[in-house]
Parts: sequence; structure tokens; C-alpha cells
Amino acid sequence: KRKGFPEVIFGEGKTVDQLYEIFLRLKEKNDTVLATRVDAEKADRVQQTVADVQYNRDARTLLWKRQEGPRYPGYVAIVCAGTSDFPVAEEAAVTAEAFGCNTERIYDVGVAGIHRLFDQLDKIQQADVVVVAAGMEGALASVVGGLVSRPIIAIPTSIGYGANFGGLSALLTMLNSCSTGVSVVNIDNGFGAGYSAGVIIKNKYEKGI
Amino acid sequence: KRKGFPEVIFGEGKTVDQLYEIFLRLKEKNDTVLATRVDAEKADRVQQTVADVQYNRDARTLLWKRQEGPRYPGYVAIVCAGTSDFPVAEEAAVTAEAFGCNTERIYDVGVAGIHRLFDQLDKIQQADVVVVAAGMEGALASVVGGLVSRPIIAIPTSIGYGANFGGLSALLTMLNSCSTGVSVVNIDNGFGAGYSAGVIIKNKYEKGI
Amino acid sequence: KRKGFPEVIFGEGKTVDQLYEIFLRLKEKNDTVLATRVDAEKADRVQQTVADVQYNRDARTLLWKRQEGPRYPGYVAIVCAGTSDFPVAEEAAVTAEAFGCNTERIYDVGVAGIHRLFDQLDKIQQADVVVVAAGMEGALASVVGGLVSRPIIAIPTSIGYGANFGGLSALLTMLNSCSTGVSVVNIDNGFGAGYSAGVIIKNKYEKGI
Amino acid sequence: KRKGFPEVIFGEGKTVDQLYEIFLRLKEKNDTVLATRVDAEKADRVQQTVADVQYNRDARTLLWKRQEGPRYPGYVAIVCAGTSDFPVAEEAAVTAEAFGCNTERIYDVGVAGIHRLFDQLDKIQQADVVVVAAGMEGALASVVGGLVSRPIIAIPTSIGYGANFGGLSALLTMLNSCSTGVSVVNIDNGFGAGYSAGVIIKNKYEKGI
Amino acid sequence: KRKGFPEVIFGEGKTVDQLYEIFLRLKEKNDTVLATRVDAEKADRVQQTVADVQYNRDARTLLWKRQEGPRYPGYVAIVCAGTSDFPVAEEAAVTAEAFGCNTERIYDVGVAGIHRLFDQLDKIQQADVVVVAAGMEGALASVVGGLVSRPIIAIPTSIGYGANFGGLSALLTMLNSCSTGVSVVNIDNGFGAGYSAGVIIKNKYEKGI
Amino acid sequence: KRKGFPEVIFGEGKTVDQLYEIFLRLKEKNDTVLATRVDAEKADRVQQTVADVQYNRDARTLLWKRQEGPRYPGYVAIVCAGTSDFPVAEEAAVTAEAFGCNTERIYDVGVAGIHRLFDQLDKIQQADVVVVAAGMEGALASVVGGLVSRPIIAIPTSIGYGANFGGLSALLTMLNSCSTGVSVVNIDNGFGAGYSAGVIIKNKYEKGI
Amino acid sequence: KRKGFPEVIFGEGKTVDQLYEIFLRLKEKNDTVLATRVDAEKADRVQQTVADVQYNRDARTLLWKRQEGPRYPGYVAIVCAGTSDFPVAEEAAVTAEAFGCNTERIYDVGVAGIHRLFDQLDKIQQADVVVVAAGMEGALASVVGGLVSRPIIAIPTSIGYGANFGGLSALLTMLNSCSTGVSVVNIDNGFGAGYSAGVIIKNKYEKGI
Amino acid sequence: KRKGFPEVIFGEGKTVDQLYEIFLRLKEKNDTVLATRVDAEKADRVQQTVADVQYNRDARTLLWKRQEGPRYPGYVAIVCAGTSDFPVAEEAAVTAEAFGCNTERIYDVGVAGIHRLFDQLDKIQQADVVVVAAGMEGALASVVGGLVSRPIIAIPTSIGYGANFGGLSALLTMLNSCSTGVSVVNIDNGFGAGYSAGVIIKNKYEKGI
Ligand SMILES: Nc1ncnc2c1ncn2[C@@H]1O[C@H](COP(=O)(O)O)[C@@H](O)[C@H]1O
Ligand SMILES: Nc1ncnc2c1ncn2[C@@H]1O[C@H](COP(=O)(O)O)[C@@H](O)[C@H]1O
Ligand SMILES: Nc1ncnc2c1ncn2[C@@H]1O[C@H](COP(=O)(O)O)[C@@H](O)[C@H]1O
Ligand SMILES: Nc1ncnc2c1ncn2[C@@H]1O[C@H](COP(=O)(O)O)[C@@H](O)[C@H]1O
Ligand SMILES: [Mg+2]
Ligand SMILES: [Mg+2]
Ligand SMILES: [Mg+2]
Ligand SMILES: [Mg+2]
Ligand SMILES: [Mg+2]
Ligand SMILES: [Mg+2]
Ligand SMILES: [Mg+2]
Ligand SMILES: [Mg+2]
Repeated sequence: KRKGFPEVIFGEGKTVDQLYEIFLRLKEKNDTVLATRVDAEKADRVQQTVADVQYNRDARTLLWKRQEGPRYPGYVAIVCAGTSDFPVAEEAAVTAEAFGCNTERIYDVGVAGIHRLFDQLDKIQQADVVVVAAGMEGALASVVGGLVSRPIIAIPTSIGYGANFGGLSALLTMLNSCSTGVSVVNIDNGFGAGYSAGVIIKNKYEKGI
Repeated sequence: KRKGFPEVIFGEGKTVDQLYEIFLRLKEKNDTVLATRVDAEKADRVQQTVADVQYNRDARTLLWKRQEGPRYPGYVAIVCAGTSDFPVAEEAAVTAEAFGCNTERIYDVGVAGIHRLFDQLDKIQQADVVVVAAGMEGALASVVGGLVSRPIIAIPTSIGYGANFGGLSALLTMLNSCSTGVSVVNIDNGFGAGYSAGVIIKNKYEKGI
Repeated sequence: KRKGFPEVIFGEGKTVDQLYEIFLRLKEKNDTVLATRVDAEKADRVQQTVADVQYNRDARTLLWKRQEGPRYPGYVAIVCAGTSDFPVAEEAAVTAEAFGCNTERIYDVGVAGIHRLFDQLDKIQQADVVVVAAGMEGALASVVGGLVSRPIIAIPTSIGYGANFGGLSALLTMLNSCSTGVSVVNIDNGFGAGYSAGVIIKNKYEKGI
Repeated sequence: KRKGFPEVIFGEGKTVDQLYEIFLRLKEKNDTVLATRVDAEKADRVQQTVADVQYNRDARTLLWKRQEGPRYPGYVAIVCAGTSDFPVAEEAAVTAEAFGCNTERIYDVGVAGIHRLFDQLDKIQQADVVVVAAGMEGALASVVGGLVSRPIIAIPTSIGYGANFGGLSALLTMLNSCSTGVSVVNIDNGFGAGYSAGVIIKNKYEKGI
Repeated sequence: KRKGFPEVIFGEGKTVDQLYEIFLRLKEKNDTVLATRVDAEKADRVQQTVADVQYNRDARTLLWKRQEGPRYPGYVAIVCAGTSDFPVAEEAAVTAEAFGCNTERIYDVGVAGIHRLFDQLDKIQQADVVVVAAGMEGALASVVGGLVSRPIIAIPTSIGYGANFGGLSALLTMLNSCSTGVSVVNIDNGFGAGYSAGVIIKNKYEKGI
Repeated sequence: KRKGFPEVIFGEGKTVDQLYEIFLRLKEKNDTVLATRVDAEKADRVQQTVADVQYNRDARTLLWKRQEGPRYPGYVAIVCAGTSDFPVAEEAAVTAEAFGCNTERIYDVGVAGIHRLFDQLDKIQQADVVVVAAGMEGALASVVGGLVSRPIIAIPTSIGYGANFGGLSALLTMLNSCSTGVSVVNIDNGFGAGYSAGVIIKNKYEKGI
Repeated sequence: KRKGFPEVIFGEGKTVDQLYEIFLRLKEKNDTVLATRVDAEKADRVQQTVADVQYNRDARTLLWKRQEGPRYPGYVAIVCAGTSDFPVAEEAAVTAEAFGCNTERIYDVGVAGIHRLFDQLDKIQQADVVVVAAGMEGALASVVGGLVSRPIIAIPTSIGYGANFGGLSALLTMLNSCSTGVSVVNIDNGFGAGYSAGVIIKNKYEKGI
Repeated sequence: KRKGFPEVIFGEGKTVDQLYEIFLRLKEKNDTVLATRVDAEKADRVQQTVADVQYNRDARTLLWKRQEGPRYPGYVAIVCAGTSDFPVAEEAAVTAEAFGCNTERIYDVGVAGIHRLFDQLDKIQQADVVVVAAGMEGALASVVGGLVSRPIIAIPTSIGYGANFGGLSALLTMLNSCSTGVSVVNIDNGFGAGYSAGVIIKNKYEKGI
């Protein structure tokens, strides 16, 4: 009944059997089915059972679409700080794409080398929604927030060590951002950010919802 | 240069003199100036100096607009759990209105009496953006998230005691929400939620930004 | 001397030898012996030594009863949010049954799809005691608390990630619940909730204790 | 519609005007109205406006009953560790009484002088429900839990200093209790414990609910 | 130069080679050498190299004494709550014995079955020093503290789960104990408690130190 | 029945009336009565009612002794880091003196100027028990622990700011001390340290207890 | 004996009498005496007693110098994010000046308006040492760290609310900074940062220390 | 463009392929390339591909220098408390050496045996910068801070257990140090301390930067 929304499976802790059974059941009533947090081995075995499912090894997602429909105009910019934040950013990208959004990946633009960010600023400023993934101290979200007038969804990642406390450091940074227009999802929750971005784009371009 | 964005002053800890000086300065180059976290006494004295400034006693905001322009279509639904969360919700509402958004206040619909929420569900489901403010355990955000397909911005409030730890309880609830499409701002940050809502609406209805 | 109360062994960290020795010793003076947190491999070996012990693979419990006595009237409703909370809910169910209580399992009724909860509301409202197990943000306890007039025992589970902090999120939610009649046990403590439910039912229906 | 349940007002942060307006409104449709966390000064002024309201200075509660109905059989034992935990224990007692329960107060029986607890053990063991309030390290709940076969509701209080962290110490103690049959409410939440006790007694003695 | 004090090696993280080298070096200038936190496999290999070293499999200690001297009068009572706290209690016992103290082990006397504690109270009350090891909520330290007039050293153990947070719960309990005469060492620090007990006894019975 | 132990009143939160009533009652059956955490104003009014009570303005203690008996041999060294830790150290000193112990105060010997500590090392090393009070990072306890072979009781104080978190910093330091023979009491708990010191001395010098 | 180092008094919690007594005593043996955390009222009264003491109302410092000596070459850049961080930055500046350092204040250059920072980048890059004070999420330290090759000392301030937790947010940000060359002092510890900056400059330019 | 600064790779979580590709790329434009947190097995394989790379097994670093240039005058003293802190200290040493600094290692001088520290005090006091690595309670930083007038960079290590909470204890100690001139880096961040030391020395001895 939520037309055009992907149906999503939280893969963590599910067995292969559980995964493909849910997949098969959801395919019947939905146009798009997405599973997150699926490791490569399980993915392989689901793919043997369920036809036309695509696995993204970085994002660790399984995606099935009844048919590749048209994309919404505009795009989601997925900005990420370091190479280690890459999988979380990919999960966000795949999720937004499952909605029918275009995405632009702008990776490895952490604040330690801020000129790389400025090189790509135009592309970020012209996005419909901006997703920012960053670990360690997560300062990238504030910097982007200060430069961009679009809705920004920040994802703290658990990358770091010591007083990082499993992502707490980046989470607090993003919640306390002195820049405006930034809202936050759970640590490592690429899916949540991609979903919120998808909802914003869907609500922007779609009539009658 | 960020046209149509209100300029905002963080009033907490500022003296009356600082407040009206910044106010006067910002009025020159901006169409809308908003100050948050201003207590009644200070507000009174700013109003004596700066013409046409409106004080909202609940939201504790001072707002000045060069002229009352047209509103964007649609509206932001501001949903709040208990009477104590009211000031935070009002701060969000005033901030969204400073952007030129319409707002619908749907207050006192906490999950302890969930039928009150269902009575108003239509109005929430048809909003462009939904802001949810809740303290104590903050479960309202998850319930609304499960019922609504619009972008949802959740504000944990510091209302509560004991193991609430100054709003930590509601904050963690909202970050861990099992419902999709929910992103979160800082504890008691009505301003931040209203601002994000404003940005989403502005980006939806305005051409060429 | 606590007649009718099951004697319980905390299986975690105990060796197979310790487990069956305690089992054999407790069988002599008690009518019901329950061991919790026993993995399948150990359970198997205990069953080879101790006769008539039943292993519940989901709950990870070993249960021995001298004889299957009559059940108390009424029942404990065991409500649980997601499939991952299932083992904890089962531990609660088995423990209540060890007391001689009937149980009704109402699983997979998390707040993200609240209509599933409403479909089963009658069965929950007519229980003698309600146990609610939920992870992530644990909002289910508040929603049930608002709809039910029976004693409610809430179990936060450790299901989740990131700012969930090993179940802390759901624990705080449940302690701060704005709904009345909810009391809380330790994270993942299905045993404790089932035991409290058993005590309430025993005290309700049994004469002279 | 929840017949026989007191309607309750959370007094903290409410003005005198708000308090008596809610009081007057709730009196119309309910038989019992209870307000908690009301200080003496406000109470005084509410009493001037609303007839027949009783203020309990220790519990800081305002209670109105349409008529003094019959009490349920049995009683709630309210056990408390130190004199400083007294107000929280009183809040629990008043709340249980608002339900129509009898109460037995067993105060100042902390574990530092455990013989005082043993002197009163019979009265605790024969209660229908036991409420235990304790601050500092909250060990009393575990000791009572080990000696009593009745449902036990534990209230951690915020009494203490230093590594007590506002009641966290007693809260963790009670959640981790090695004794069975203990469930826990929020720090200082005498109301919640009294309410849960009331629900258990009501469900035990009342027909057809 | 600290005559009569055992020299101690912290075994955790040390290789076998490091262990026996330090052992051999320390044997030359000391009468007693103790290594803690040594697993069975490493112990075995150290014993092959260093003569006359005794391994205690429960305490995970290696102990060498130049000669078995006379013991001090009196004894240290080592009290422990559950079977899981046993290794920590043993580490305390072995350390006190390394000092030349007698020890009395009083194990499995947790507060859930408090009569077992009372059965052995005399032996505890007549000790020179009492060490109490307890996990989960650690209430045993307070109960013993209320019944005994001797110096009490409490060891929180990391036994437990959920809101136990790796021993934090028992640690806070013991620090906030309402009983007097209790001081506390680090979580699982059986060594520290045994050492403090040894120092107290040495200072009591030895002349001229 | 605990002969020779002072009876103690926790003054915090008690009214003047409560204080002197308890004082009068305890005087009848005890030889020594001590009240801690009593502010000057209340102390003044208690002294008007109860004869022969001495107030220590720094320690904030009220002490009554039936008669000034003989002191135990030896002494407790009370070592403290900064002038701000002084009141906590005094509370420890007064408590030990209430037991009949001699005390030596060695104040203002923090590790930032370690030579001051070395100047007084002899006096510390020859004490029967050493109490160390330190705030901020609390390193003094470790340094003393490394230099002294006597039982050491460490008191973290709440002196400091920022990441001191109300004494947490010094508490963790002392619990994790790499020096041996150090046990710890609650933050600011001068009383607890003085009591433990008193118990150790009493058990050392007194026959037949 | 530490020639050229200012002697420093921690003013917090000290009485006026204590302050000027210490001041007078320290003046005799030192060339520079600095007191921090002194409020205006106390400062006023100290100035009446001690000649030639200068009070800085923003930094809340009292400074006395025997004579205004020559300054070291170069300078400390004091960079600060928002107007609220100003007092902490001033404390750092005054402390560095007490050492004989020149200072350049670069204030109100938070990352929300990053162009203001770039406008002043030259002045920051050419400093000998850079001190960065920032509250809320503290991202400024990382941005400066990425742009500057000088030693950077970061001060988290307690400015903020909600999930800022008294400066914890900025503290964790700075400790986890992905930029190099950044070390951190305690929350609000302007003094500590100024002192470290002073030591670095003194060691750079002074011969023979 | 930051001439003379080593380029650094964060090895943790990188594959062998990623490591040597980055290494080869960075070698082209830099004179010094350093990789941290590389385990022995990966290091071995990188060394097979990239010529002239040196692996330090203790520090877990890979270092390549175009040519062994001249060293700066003076030295960095690397002070460390226990043998377990050794790898972190080595990481700091290797990083400082990558800058061209001389280093003096002063290891195993923890405060439990403070005389070993005093034996080496001269060497520490004459360093240009002092790095102090310590785990458990981290008191060494304060002791060194009190004895030395040079810039001190403190590294808390995660060595310890129980209430050490993964290095939190040492981190808080160092942030709250009562000694002056101490600034702090993240837990186990030997690299960060070595880098800051390198920057201080480079800025001291190099002209025109
Ligand atoms: N209530 C608020 N909570 C968080 N940030 C705020 C709030 N009000 C204003 N701000 C932010 O504070 C900035 C202004 O800070 P200031 O220059 O100190 O007045 C604005 O640009 C907003 O981004
Ligand atoms: N899953 C569980 N969680 C918490 N406590 C438990 C659990 N299972 C058993 N227990 C408690 O552990 C006690 C037995 O512990 P033990 O003697 O170590 O087997 C029982 O009396 C129960 O109170
Ligand atoms: N189990 C333990 N817990 C805490 N400290 C210990 C333990 N065992 C030994 N130690 C301390 O560690 C020191 C030796 O450390 P190390 O030089 O690393 O072997 C001894 O002097 C003891 O103070
Ligand atoms: N051990 C370490 N701890 C913290 N940061 C490091 C460490 N090693 C390298 N770095 C930083 O990580 C950056 C490189 O990250 P990457 O591009 O992921 O290799 C370097 O510029 C350093 O600032
Ligand atoms: Mg923005
Ligand atoms: Mg939704
Ligand atoms: Mg209810
Ligand atoms: Mg029980
Ligand atoms: Mg005692
Ligand atoms: Mg010692
Ligand atoms: Mg830098
Ligand atoms: Mg120094």
C-alpha cells in the first residue's frame, strides 16, 4: 500500500533459509525488495534460489526490482570522508537507488584535506539531498552543512579507535553540529540515510502522494 | 547569499545589548531574522529597541520579517507527545514559519493514549514534512514513523527524570527507531528540526535553487 | 520449601559436568528444574545423562518436570517486536510454563507495522499478565502499556547496533515509559520476566500462599 | 473506560492554573484523580480551588476520590531502606491506596542493619505485592527478593552521592539482581511502582476485568 | 627491600618467554614470586623451565616460594557469591597465601539464599580481614558489611550480562555501599584484594615494619 | 553491641529537628556519636540542644564522646593533594579520631610538586594506615602506593572540572592504580576512608574483638 | 627554579583572603603571578590589597608581573569558533602572554561560515603555535588541523546543550581528529592550552633551558 | 607541499593490495612514507612489492625514506610506564624518527617503582619534547609533568582491565592532570603523539616554515 517504497529486510542475524523465504514472499506483493547487512556467502546462496537478485559486495545489499523503472529527476549526493567509510556510504547509495533516485558518489573528501571537498562543491550544492558519512570525529558533516543549502542527512560511522567508542564520537559531533539543516541517523545506518533521502526525493517529484 | 533563508541568532548566554546589536546588524542584509532561546525579560527589552519584532513566549523566539511574504504550499505537521514538550515543538513551528512554511500543530498525542494520535492521522499523513517532539521514552517518533510516508524529523526533549538522563533516553530511542524515514536532531533542538523541515519544503516548491 | 516454584540453573559458563550434576541434585528435592542459557551441544550431552529433560532450541532452556501437572487458569501473553527478539521471548514463555502457566505467543508485532498489533489486541488485553520483549528502541512496551490494563513486564533485548549500545537504548525506553503499569527486567532477561509473570499468576490463583 | 483506575496528573513543571484546570476536568469523568510531584505551595492553592482534595506532604501528592469505596483484600507491603527514601516510598503507598489497596509501611530496614528487616519479615512475606525502595547501592531489593515469594517491584532512589550518579547505582543493582521475581521501575518513580502494585492487586481480586 | 612482600608479575599479554625470564630474574632477589592471569598452557611451559613453581588452575596463578615459612596467626575470610565468581576469589586467596596468611574460603553464599551466609557467619566475623567477591549486582558486600566489624575488601566481578556492563553494576554497588568498613578494588581484581588483605595482616602481626 | 565503634548519622538532607533527635537517642546507648555532612548553621542549632557536641567547620562534622578515652598506639596518616581536597581529608581525620586513633595530617603534597611529598615520606611510611585524598586526576594515590608498604585507602574527590565528571576521573585512576595495597571508597567519602582506617587500627591493637 | 615560568593560582573555590595571601606570598619569589577563574567581585577586592594586579574581565584572570619584559619573537594564534567560546580563548591568550608570548586573536571563525576562517588563514599558518577553542561539536580543530603545519592545541569548550553533555562532544571530536598535529587539553581549560603554547615558544626561542 | 612532513597511511582495515598501491603512489611525490597499524603478515607481503621499506615489528609500522637525511638537533624523550605500553611508545618513536627527529627511549618507569624514573630524570628534562605513554591509571604523565619544563604529549594506552574501560581511565587522568604543560592525544595513538612531537621539533629548528 505504500506504493513505490522498497520493502526492506534487515539481514543481520538471519539464516540463508530465512532470507530467501522472506525474499520470495515479499516479491509477490512488492515491486522492489532490498536486503541489507548480508555477507557474501549468504548472498551467494540466496542468489541461487531467488532469480534476478543483485548483490553489492561493498554495500552488502541484495536488491531485486520487478523492472528497472524510470528514475526521478535530480540526485542524491553521497559524500564520504575516508576510504573506511565507503561501505556505509554504499549502503546509503544502494538504498536511495532502490527508490529510483539517481546518486552521485563524492568519496574520500575528509576535512584533513579540505581542498578535495572544495573541488567537488558544485556537485554537492546542486544535489536534491546530501548524505554525509564520516567516522572518527565526523567533522565533515558540519563543514558540508555550512556550505550547502540542501537537506543534509548525516551518518556517523564506527570507524576509529580509542575514545571513538564505537562511533559515539562522530554521532555526538553530528548531533551538536553548529551548521544548520543537518539531521542524523544511527551509527553505520547507511540504509536509514538512503531511505530518508529517497523519501524526500519521492515527496518532491511525485504527484499525489 | 542564501536567499530566502532566515538568519538566526542563538540567544542563550547573550546579553540584551549583544542581542539587539546583532539584530540591527542582521536586519540590514536579510529579510528574516530569528533569535532562539530568548527569555521574556530580554525579549521585552529587545522589542523596545528593534521595531516590528515579534516575541513568542512559548517558543522563546524573537522574529522579524521585512514583510509578510506568501507562504509555500503544503505544510509542516508538528506533532508532540505531552504538554511539557510544547515549548520545543513551538520553537520548531516558529522556525519553519520563519521560512515561509505553513504549519499544523498536532499536540498532546503521546503513545499512552494512542487513539488521540489516530484521530489526527490524516492530517499528519498529508503533510509535506513531519516533525515529532517527544520526551521521556520518545516512542511517539517510532509510532508516527510506522504510519507515515513523509520525511520525519524527530526531536528528543529533555522532559523526564531519573534514567532519562537529560533526554538521552528519548535520543537513543529515536536514533534506534525501527521505523523508516526518521532522522534526528539534538535534544531540545526545536530550531534544528524546524530548519530542516523548512529546507525540505523550500527545496520542494522553489524553482532554481 | 518455596512450593511450586521451579528451581533454576544459570547455564552460562557452566560445564556439561557441572550442569548435569546440579540437575541430578536438584531433581531430588524439587518438582521442576529449569536451566537457562544452555547451548545445543551441551544440552545434548545433559539429555544423555538426565532422563526426561526437554530442550527448547530457541529458548536455549532445559526443563524437567516430575509430572505434567494441571495448569493455572488464564494465561501470560508473550508479545514480541521482531523475529530477532524471538529467543528472549521464548525464554520468558518456557519459564512461565515451568510454573504451570498457560502462554499465548504474539510475535512479530513491532510498532513499525502497528496494525499487526491491533489485530491481536484482544488476546493481549485479556491476558493475566503481559510480557513484552523488544530490542532496538523498544517502543512496543509503551504502546502496549497504553492499550492494556494488566501487569506488564518489559524485557529490553540487545538486538540492534550503533547507538543501541548492547540494549541500553531499549532499556532506557522501557524505564522511562510514559505508559503506566510497566515494570522492567534486565536486558535479554527472558527468564526474569517469565519468572515474575509466573509469580503473579501463582499468587492470583493459588490459595494459601 | 478503564474502570477503577485512578486518572493521574504528572505535576512537575505544571503551573497552579494548569493543575486545577486539569483536576476539575478529570473529576467530571473519573472517580479518582491523583496528581504527583506537587510542591506544598502549589498544593495549597489547588486545594483552595478544588474541593475535597487531600495533600500528602511527604509523597507530594494531591488525591481526590469521589467517595471512599471499599478496599481490596490483602495489602501492598512498602519496604524502604533509609529515611531519605521515605518520600519515594510514600508516593508508591499513596498511589496504591488510590487504587483501593491496603498498604503496610515497613520503613528504615536497610541492609546495614539487617536484623530490623528480619523482625518484620512475616509482614513482608504475607503481602500480595511487595514494593522495595532503596537508594545508594539498593541492595535491599536483592535481599528481599531472596526471602519473599511474592511479586516484587523495586524502585531505585536517587539518594546518595559520588559514584551514585543520580540513582544509576541502585538502578543497575536492581536490574542485575540475582534474586528472582524482581522487576524495576525508573529512578524515584514511586508512582510507577505503586501503580503496578495496584494493577496486580486489582487483577487478582476483581472479577470480569 | 620490601621484606616479606611477594614480587608479582602481571601475566596478561606476556609471552611464555617473557614470563619465565622475569620469573628467573625475580627468584634471585626475592623469597616469593607470584604471577597472575596466566593461562594453563603458558603455565605448563613455565613450569618446565622454572623449578618448584605451583600452578593454580582456578586462580590462574603461578607461585614460587623459596621455602614454606610459618604462617601469620589469624586468617583472611574469602567470601564469594556464586560459582562463577570462584576464579576471582581464588586469585585473592592465593595472593593472600603468598604473603603467608591463612585463608578460609566461604563460597556460594549469595544473597538470593541468604541463610547459607548466616550458617557461616561466625567464621566470617572472626576473620582478621574479609574479602568479598560478587558479580551481578554485588549486594553481598553490603550484607556482609552490615554484619561484620572487620576490615572488608570488596571485589566486583564481571559476571553477569546486559545492564551489568562488564562489572560496572557490582562496582557501583560496592562503592555506594550503605554498610561501613568496606573498601573496593577494581573489577575482577582478586590479586588487589588479596594483596591488601595480606598487607593488613602483615602490619597487624609483624613487629618492626 | 559493636563495642567501641562510633555510631554515625548521615547529616545530608536531614532537618535540624531530625538531627538532634537522633543525636539524643544515640547518645543513650553509645559512647561516641558522629554526624557527617552537617552545615554550620544546622550545627549551631544542634549544639544549642545537645550538650558537649563539637563541630569541625572544615570536616562539617558534629562529634560527641561520652569521655575522652585513651588513644590507640600508632597513627593514621591523612595525605591530601590540594587545598581543595582539604574538607574531605578532614572528614576522614575526624572519623578516625572518633574511633580513638591518632592522626597525622600531611596536606598539600600533590604530584605537581612531588618534592613536598618526599619531604614527608618518613611520616607516611611509618603510619599504621594511610588515607590518600585527591581530586582532579588523583595520581597521588598511585605515587604513595608505590612508596609505602602500609594499607592504603584512597578517596577520590570531586574537585576538578570538565572531563573530571564529578570525580569520576580520580575514581577510575584509583581503581586502576598500578601500585599495590590500595583500596578505594566512594567519591568524597572521607567518612568511609576514616572508618575503614579506624577498623584496621582497632583490629590491630585491640584484644579479643 | 623554573625560571621564567609564571606561578599560577587556581582561583575556583578560593576565598578572597586565600587569594590575596597566596598572591602576596608568590610575588616574593616569582616574576609573574597569574590567578585563573576569579570572578569580578573577588578580583576587585584582591586588587585593593595587592598592588599592580591586572584583572581581565573576559578571561577572569588576575595577572601580576614584576616588570613588563621583552616578548619572545613570533606569536600564538588563538582561534575560536563562536562568541560563546570567547572567555576560554581569552584565558588561553592571557596565559600565553604571562609567559611573554605575543598573541593574535582570530575569533568567531566557526565552520558554519568557513569563509571567515579562510580570510584569516595566513595569520594562522604563520603562527608558532595555534590554540583552537570550540564548543558544540568542535569541528573547527579538525579543519584548522588540516590546513596548518604548526603545533595545534585544541580546547573543547562546554558551550552547547543536549547531547553536548557538558563539552564531551567537542572533547571526543578533538581527540578523534582525523587531522594531524592536534593535541588536546581538558574541557574549558584555556589556561592549560595557553601554558602548553607558552612552553613550546619558550623552548623554541630561549637558549639554555 | 607540506615539505618535510611524512605522508602517512592508516593501515588498519586496509588490504595488502590497498596498502602497497597507496605506498607506491605516495612514494612518487613524497620523501617519506609511513604506514601505521600494519600486522606482520601484511607487512611481509608489502615488503615483497615495495623496495626499501622497513618494518618495525613492535610499532607495527612500515617506513620508507627516499634517503636517510640529517637529523634535527635535540631529541624526543619517549617515556613509558609498563612493558605492555611498549608498542604504543614505539609507534610514537618511529613516527618522530620519520620526521628526522632523534629519540631517546626511557621505558618501564611506571610510578609503582618511582625511583626508576628518577634515575633517568636528567635525560627526560633535557629533551626538546617529552612523550609519555601509560595505561592503567596513567599517573606517570602527571608525575613527569610535575618534574619537567618541556612540552609534554601524553598518550593514554588501553592496557588494563575492568574499570579501565578500554583506556578511558588513563585518558581522563591525563586530561585532568594537575601538572602543567601536558596535552593529550587519543587512546593508543602513538602516531599522533609522535607526529605532534615531530611538528614541535621541526618548527623549533627549521628556518622559514
Ligand atoms: N536553538 C538553537 N539550537 C542550535 N543552534 C542554534 C539555535 N539557534 C541558533 N542556532 C545556530 O546558531 C547560529 C548563530 O549562533 P550565534 O552566532 O552564536 O548567534 C545560527 O546560525 C544557527 O545555526
Ligand atoms: N537467564 C537468567 N538470567 C538471570 N538469572 C538467571 C537466569 N537463569 C537462572 N538465573 C538465576 O540464577 C540462579 C541460579 O544460579 P546458579 O546457582 O549459578 O545456577 C537462579 O536461582 C536464578 O535466580
Ligand atoms: N591481576 C593483577 N591485577 C592488577 N595488577 C596486577 C595483577 N597482577 C600483578 N599486578 C601488578 O602488576 C605489577 C607487575 O606488572 P608487570 O611488570 O607488567 O609484570 C605488579 O607489581 C603488580 O602490582
Ligand atoms: N595510527 C594512527 N592513528 C590515527 N590516525 C592515523 C594513524 N595512522 C595514520 N593516521 C592518519 O590517517 C591518515 C591517512 O588515512 P588513510 O587515507 O585512510 O590512510 C593520515 O594522514 C594520518 O592523519
Ligand atoms: Mg546548511
Ligand atoms: Mg516511515
Ligand atoms: Mg497500562
Ligand atoms: Mg523472590
Ligand atoms: Mg561493617
Ligand atoms: Mg604499596
Ligand atoms: Mg596539521
Ligand atoms: Mg610541566
